[in-house]
Order: sequence, then C-alpha cells, then structure tokens
Amino acid sequence: MDAAPGSLNPAIDPAGLDKLAEVAVTVGLAVRPGQDVVLTGPVEALPLIRRIVTRAYDAGARLVTPLISDEALALIRYQHAPEESFDHEAAWLFEAMGKAYREGAARMAIYAEDPMLLSDQDPDKVSRANRARSVAARPAMEPIVDFLINWSICSYPSLSWAKRLFPDLDETEAVGKLANAIFAASRADGDEPVADWKAHTADLAGRRDWLNQLRFAALRYTAPGTELTIGLADGHEWQGGAATAQNGINCVCNIPTEEVFTTPHALQVDGHVRSTKPLSYQGSLVEDIEVRFEAGRIVEAKASRGEAVFNKVLDTDEGARRLGEVALVPHSSPISQSGLLFFNTLFDENASSHIALGQCYRKALVNGAKLSDDEVAQSGGNKSLIHIDWMIGSGEMDIDGLDKAGNATPVMRGGEWA
Amino acid sequence: MDAAPGSLNPAIDPAGLDKLAEVAVTVGLAVRPGQDVVLTGPVEALPLIRRIVTRAYDAGARLVTPLISDEALALIRYQHAPEESFDHEAAWLFEAMGKAYREGAARMAIYAEDPMLLSDQDPDKVSRANRARSVAARPAMEPIVDFLINWSICSYPSLSWAKRLFPDLDETEAVGKLANAIFAASRADGDEPVADWKAHTADLAGRRDWLNQLRFAALRYTAPGTELTIGLADGHEWQGGAATAQNGINCVCNIPTEEVFTTPHALQVDGHVRSTKPLSYQGSLVEDIEVRFEAGRIVEAKASRGEAVFNKVLDTDEGARRLGEVALVPHSSPISQSGLLFFNTLFDENASSHIALGQCYRKALVNGAKLSDDEVAQSGGNKSLIHIDWMIGSGEMDIDGLDKAGNATPVMRGGEWA
Repeated sequence: MDAAPGSLNPAIDPAGLDKLAEVAVTVGLAVRPGQDVVLTGPVEALPLIRRIVTRAYDAGARLVTPLISDEALALIRYQHAPEESFDHEAAWLFEAMGKAYREGAARMAIYAEDPMLLSDQDPDKVSRANRARSVAARPAMEPIVDFLINWSICSYPSLSWAKRLFPDLDETEAVGKLANAIFAASRADGDEPVADWKAHTADLAGRRDWLNQLRFAALRYTAPGTELTIGLADGHEWQGGAATAQNGINCVCNIPTEEVFTTPHALQVDGHVRSTKPLSYQGSLVEDIEVRFEAGRIVEAKASRGEAVFNKVLDTDEGARRLGEVALVPHSSPISQSGLLFFNTLFDENASSHIALGQCYRKALVNGAKLSDDEVAQSGGNKSLIHIDWMIGSGEMDIDGLDKAGNATPVMRGGEWA
Repeated sequence: MDAAPGSLNPAIDPAGLDKLAEVAVTVGLAVRPGQDVVLTGPVEALPLIRRIVTRAYDAGARLVTPLISDEALALIRYQHAPEESFDHEAAWLFEAMGKAYREGAARMAIYAEDPMLLSDQDPDKVSRANRARSVAARPAMEPIVDFLINWSICSYPSLSWAKRLFPDLDETEAVGKLANAIFAASRADGDEPVADWKAHTADLAGRRDWLNQLRFAALRYTAPGTELTIGLADGHEWQGGAATAQNGINCVCNIPTEEVFTTPHALQVDGHVRSTKPLSYQGSLVEDIEVRFEAGRIVEAKASRGEAVFNKVLDTDEGARRLGEVALVPHSSPISQSGLLFFNTLFDENASSHIALGQCYRKALVNGAKLSDDEVAQSGGNKSLIHIDWMIGSGEMDIDGLDKAGNATPVMRGGEWA
C-alpha cells in the first residue's frame, strides 16, 4: 500500500535533498522571477522534482512544466516495439522544448538513469535509436549548446543507479551511500551550501582567468599511454563554474562542477590518448579506450569493452571523430578523492581532466554568441550531433601550455595544477 | 524501500489491469501498425501505462510518447507559484501534441485524477488556470474534437480518487473496490473482454441507427424539475459505441461508454433543467444545478454547491452558455446500477442521460469532417473553449422525439428506452 510514487526512500536524508534542491534552483538554474522552466527527470526522482518545483515557484518562476520519463517504458520499447521504431523519435516534442527555450524558458534536468539500462539490448537498435534521438533533439539542444538561456543539470540517487555502483550492498544501504556521495559531490552537504558554492565558483573563476590571460595555442598531454597535442580554437575562451547565458542570467550548468574547459581546434589534434575511467554512454559501458588522432581526426579506435558501441558513435557523423571540448580537473577533486566511479558523466567528468568528442560549445569562444556557424567552424569549433565526454586525466598526467612558438608553460604536474 | 514508482498496489487485480489494457489498446484506441501514440496519464497510473505501452508496441505501434503528470506538482503550483502563473500555460506543449496528431499519432489518455484535488484552492486561480489551459490546449483539442485521428480515454484506480469515493474504507479496500468498479464498468471483467465489447458496440449501433433513421427535429425532456426542449442541429448525426475517425480507424473514444449522442442546435434550446448527479469539474464539485434556457442560451443558473465555479465556467465565452452535445443513456446502465458516483465524467456520464455545455463534436454532424466552421455554425453546431458534460437523466425521466410538425414519438420512458 505504500507504493505511492514520489514517496521518499527512507535511506535518503530529506535535509540533504532539500539542500540539493536549493543549490539546483538558486545556484544552478538561478531562475529569474517571471521565467518559465522546463524540467526533465525520471519518475523515481519525484521527491527531488517536487522540491525543485516548489523552490522554483518560491523564487518567482511563472510556470514549471515537468516532462517525466520512466526507465521501464524505455525498456518496454526495446522489448516490444517493431524494428522501424528505432529509426524514429518524437521530433515534435523536442521542437516544442526548443520553442520554449527560445521563448525564454530555463531548462532544469535531473539525471538519475541506470547507467547500464540498455546494456542487454541489441546494440544496433541502441545505436539507431541514439542517432534518431540526436537528430530529433537538435532543436532542443541548440539553445542549450548556444547558451541562449540559463540551464542546469543535477542528479538524484535512484535505486537502479545505486545498485550498479554498489552491487554488493543491500538496496537501502546502496541508495543511502549514493545519496550521500551525490550530496557531497554537489557541495550540498554543508551548513550553507549556497555560500560554499560562491567560494567554489570564485576558485574556478581564478583558474579560468589565468588561462584566458595566457591564451595558449595548444595543450600537450603526457601520461602512460598518452602523448597528445590539442590545438586550441582561435579565439577560444576558457569557462568554469558560473557563466552568463545570452539572456543575462549567471548560472552553473552542472551540479557538481570542478572543471575549467574551452574549445579545441577540430583540425589540430595529433597523437594518441588512453582513457583512465570507463565511459558510460546511454546504457553501454566503454572501457580502456585508446585512440589515435591525425590532424584532428580519430583514425584508429580501440576499447577493451564496448568497442563496437564506441565505433558506432564515431560513425555518427564527420564531427563525431573530432574534439569539441577540452577540460581540466585536478586529480585531487573531491569526486576523484571519493574513489567512486559513478558511471555518470556529470560526476565522472569532474573527477578527471577530459576531452569530448563532437559538438563544441559556442560559449567557449570569445563572443561566441555573435559568431555565425561559418565563423565558429573557421575558428576551429567542431560540429556534430553528439557531445560525449571521456576521462583521460590521472595522478600521472602532465599538461603543458604551448604558445605559438612552441614554448611550454606547466599547467598541470602529476594531475595537479602546476 | 518498496516505494518504487510503478509498483502495483496489491489491492488491484493484475489480471483485471491486463484486460483493461487489452480493451484500451485493441477496442479503445485500435492502434494501427506503424502508428505513433501520444499517451497522457498520471504517475500513479504507471502500472496501467506500462501495460498499455507494451500492448501498443505488440500491436505494431511505432513510438509511444508518454507525457506523465503528477497531482502533487499541480498542488505545489497553487501553493507556491506567483499570481501571474494562473493566466499562463505551456502553449508550446499543446501545440506540439496537436502537431503529433496532425502528423498521424493516436492519442491515449488515462484519467485517474482526484476529483477534489483543487477544491481547497482559490477558485479565482482555478478558474483563471482552467481558462488559460482551455485557450492553450486548443491546438491539441481540435484534432480530437474534429476526430482527425483515433483516440481513447480509460481510467485507473488511483488512491486519491478511491479515497474520495470511499472515505470510510481503509485505503487498500477503497482502491480494490474502485479497481473492481472500473473493471466492471469498462467491461474488462469477463473472460473475453474484446468479444464482450463487440456485442456491446453492436447494441449501441442499433440504437444509433434507429435515431438516425427518424432524425427528430427536437427532443422534449420531462422529469421533476425539468421541462426542456432541445432542438437538434440540422444534419445532426447520432453516434454511439465505435466510430470511424477521419484517418479511417474505427475506435471507441470512451472506455466505458453507454451513450448515444448527437449535436443539438445551439440556438434552439428552451425551458429549464435540473442536474441529477454532481458535476466534478477540474477539482471542484458542483451540485444540484438548475438552469433556464432561452433560445439556446442559459439565462439563469443556480447550484446548491459550487455555484460560483459553475457561473465562472459559463462566463468562459459566449458558447459556454449553450449546448454542444446531447446524449441518451438508459437508467439501467451497469454504471447507473452500480449505485456509485465516480466523481468522474467518464463514468458518471454513462450512468445517465446528459447534456454538455460548450464545443460541439463535428463528427456528430452528417459529413461533419468536410464542413467549414461557418457551415457547422449555420447548422446549429456550438463553438466554445469548453466541453462539460452534466447529468440530467433519472428513472423518472421521459423523453420524446419531435418531428418538424411537433408530432411526438416516445424515446425514453421512466429512464429506459421506449
């Protein structure tokens, strides 16, 4: 009888969830009075969704429209839908979300997916469905990628995710442990989380400003299995922590965030690189990735697990083989120090320096919002249907900044800021 | 720990739910292989939603897109949103649903709302929000009202609804009792529900064809508190049971359904009428309605409860004071015989002859799909943002059909087919 949806799992500290909602709305989204909000999240996250909606209205949001997903329905599709289903998506819904954003709505997303949800499904179906989704989702993704409006993503400790992280614990313990890890990583575990976030974003802004002062032409990565030079886009702009959307709202897109990042030059990446953490991609796990770049393009890709999925991703389009983001995270970041692998990019990318295949972020170019698509491409910004982060940092990684003449400045040594 | 959303309340017979899903997909929606489906329903109905999605895919549906609502979020809005929220709706979402229907998607809706959800909220806010929703929802409602595509509505025994029906029972018992009442009313309780529905729709088709043969000019209602003559639209067409949408699919829009109905003439209704069951309208209850019509228009309206809400509804627009539907249901219908008041129009309208304020159904006019808006209006079809059924039938009601000369033919006597 107590299977009421939205009832809180007793393993989750309600005070922690309250603080996470406060961080999500106040720091993450920074919703403006009178602004609409589009909120996406899984049904299991209802206790957090309800808290976020409450706080958003208290902060003056005009209308919060929830789009609630269900993992069971996603699986039912794989098990029962006809073949043609997997080349199709509800484009009308993504177009509508895009319209809402262009009309000024903010976007709040809650990620709580089972990272292995689709691992037992036909990889061909998964790949086709992902591709169809990437194409259909473009109108909803563009205002996000172009940073037209304030947006933010946070997480919720769902049971299915917790079981993947802690398969040996009983369910209550697993959920409680994931909940506390999320609260800590999201800096929602202190007495004054909003003040803690102010200090943290100021710290990231300091790193960001130093890199923007130096404007390296390239970064050179050295680590076991990695010898890689990544040219940076002409007019690249380092970003980190809080940032200001085109609508003038200063928000924090990722809760948690530990990175400073910028736009690499899609044609100027050379060498080889090895991943240091598994990549969890839409229900599949890809481990021990090793790729070789020539003139910005991946010409060779291997993985000890999920190699077929990874190669299908690379075949999405021409831009899928090129970099769209480069990000620096110290090896001593709290998420790295937790020792946990979350199987969730939102967390794992903040445990390690990383790179992303695919679409670049316009906001990580000087005056990016005002550049035409051609100007973005000319400066080296990559274009693709995908944007997939994967982790390459470790305690053994050195990174140098190179100026145009090739002179090196230490940026990181042994995984830490130099 | 067992608060997993979507887990089935043990008071609900899973076999009954399976049969209800079978009826909804096979009889109600009659989804065509390759067709998309837009499915709306509350989070509490997930056990039925998942069964319906499974069966829809098994029947060949290409993609089912769920739009899942949450009553708690609706209440949070009333308790926390700023004033301006209540004059606003997510028009972008309704436009998108309309687009999906015009592109061929079927629409499946699950109603399981707490009928009194908003009864403690500010009636002014409720009325403004309803009006904003009616306006915004128009693009999504038009393809439904115009019967462009196959659509169907069924119900789920949610806890909040069950508690309103059976406030004196414990929760398990209340949900179980509502579940069994829904299964019985929806003719999903037999061994062969699809065959039962075939027999039932054949029976309704017989009544419908008799009325279409006679084509009365008007109906005259006589009962305690009621002396009413309702002119029927020129070229009205009686409908009942299964019907064929403009896309050629023969579906049953309401599960359950016991009515035959047609389009009245918006300018030719005279007399007074008293409601015989409460009207549950978007969270408010309106009881003992008494209205007087002159030349089709309600010129006086009273109610013992909810009079203010009812009068606000009448003020929605000019068409809200005129009739858009007239429906005949025998007093001996199974839903009437159950003795239950469901506080849900989908059920209660099938317990009693009823009339509806507001928008007419184009499909209840001969060749309705091909008529222009002007032609619909000229034939007497009403236009409004609203469509609200309310019950006027009883075991004491006599109905006569009148031809153009005023000659009477008995249609119902003592609430039964004559």
